[in-house]
Amino acid sequence: MRIAIGIYERFTSLDAMGPFQVLSSFPGAEVTFVAEKEGPVLDESGFLTVTARAAFDDLPDPDILLVPGGIITGTLVPHHPIVGWIARAHRTTTWTTSVCTGALLLAGAGVLNGVEATTHWGAMDELARLGAVPVRERVVRRGKIVTAAGVSAGIDMALTLAGAIYGPELAQTLQLAMEYDPAPPYDTGSPEKAGPATVERALTSMAAVMQNLLA
Amino acid sequence: MRIAIGIYERFTSLDAMGPFQVLSSFPGAEVTFVAEKEGPVLDESGFLTVTARAAFDDLPDPDILLVPGGIITGTLVPHHPIVGWIARAHRTTTWTTSVCTGALLLAGAGVLNGVEATTHWGAMDELARLGAVPVRERVVRRGKIVTAAGVSAGIDMALTLAGAIYGPELAQTLQLAMEYDPAPPYDTGSPEKAGPATVERALTSMAAVMQNLLA
Repeated sequence: MRIAIGIYERFTSLDAMGPFQVLSSFPGAEVTFVAEKEGPVLDESGFLTVTARAAFDDLPDPDILLVPGGIITGTLVPHHPIVGWIARAHRTTTWTTSVCTGALLLAGAGVLNGVEATTHWGAMDELARLGAVPVRERVVRRGKIVTAAGVSAGIDMALTLAGAIYGPELAQTLQLAMEYDPAPPYDTGSPEKAGPATVERALTSMAAVMQNLLA
Repeated sequence: MRIAIGIYERFTSLDAMGPFQVLSSFPGAEVTFVAEKEGPVLDESGFLTVTARAAFDDLPDPDILLVPGGIITGTLVPHHPIVGWIARAHRTTTWTTSVCTGALLLAGAGVLNGVEATTHWGAMDELARLGAVPVRERVVRRGKIVTAAGVSAGIDMALTLAGAIYGPELAQTLQLAMEYDPAPPYDTGSPEKAGPATVERALTSMAAVMQNLLA
């Protein structure tokens, strides 16, 4: 099972690392972090450097494709090399998946034309503009395409995928091994639960990150 | 706010990356992945390479210390350099924290002698043997020491820490920004919920990882 995680400068780390924890435990998994070229790739915060072990051209046909998001992704469509790579790889994948605004890159690659999909709550309109049909669910599976909501939703997505591929027994075992029995200290994980003041603060802080990235 | 994440060969990636997503958004955060020496560090699966940007000796006095776990950690006590680093750094930290079996490294450094703490459900006995008082809770805070249960619990721990340091408003905003509204596809996140057959499978799979790491 060849699994490719497509990364790019300033991707959101947990979008990739949540599902990675699950995918890397799939039986016979060979997981590769792939980028425009081999070598160091910086995350959104700038504090984390991950090594891409292959270039997009070296791994054109993974079985499972995972695309993490980032506040930057909207600016990568349509010109960034990851977009063309997704379009080509999707033709032969068994599963094409995204987390958070990774869905914008799938959409930019034409993978989501008229297809129901989800993304970060703050990117629903942008997802629609790129031709997808936004759905406000934690994990959305349509055929071989599986999209997850914002950042942390990638963990739920990967466990869902584990169940779809290998059945519940393995998925449940992986969930126990990572002690995924979440107990968030607050109940503010969605805009509806958090309320308008917290939504405003989150949007402001994400806009500030974006401004720093573009500076 | 200088935050050090202490890593070592074969650490469990999500133990570090869950909290990292939260900590890296703290106001004025300077997060550094620190290891025995600067350079590439391999995760437990072998598929992920993270760059340590400082050696332990270069960052002896972080404000916040985070120690992720790994199936390997029990074998690192007491000789691995991270143990001495934790012992020294803890004297001046504002917060000393661990995720999963990172608690074994805190205990090995003498930080948890007679102190209530938590770890992965499969490592409770080992934590007791190292002098701590194991508690089966998701996040345990005793003074400036905050320990989290297995792997994914680091996210809950970091949000708890955000609330303790900055108050609920910031913590709730970070939780919304990462859309942490978990919806695990199964209810098998703890041994009690998963039942003995799944526990047995998880222990077998973790033992197999350990055997590979020691081979």
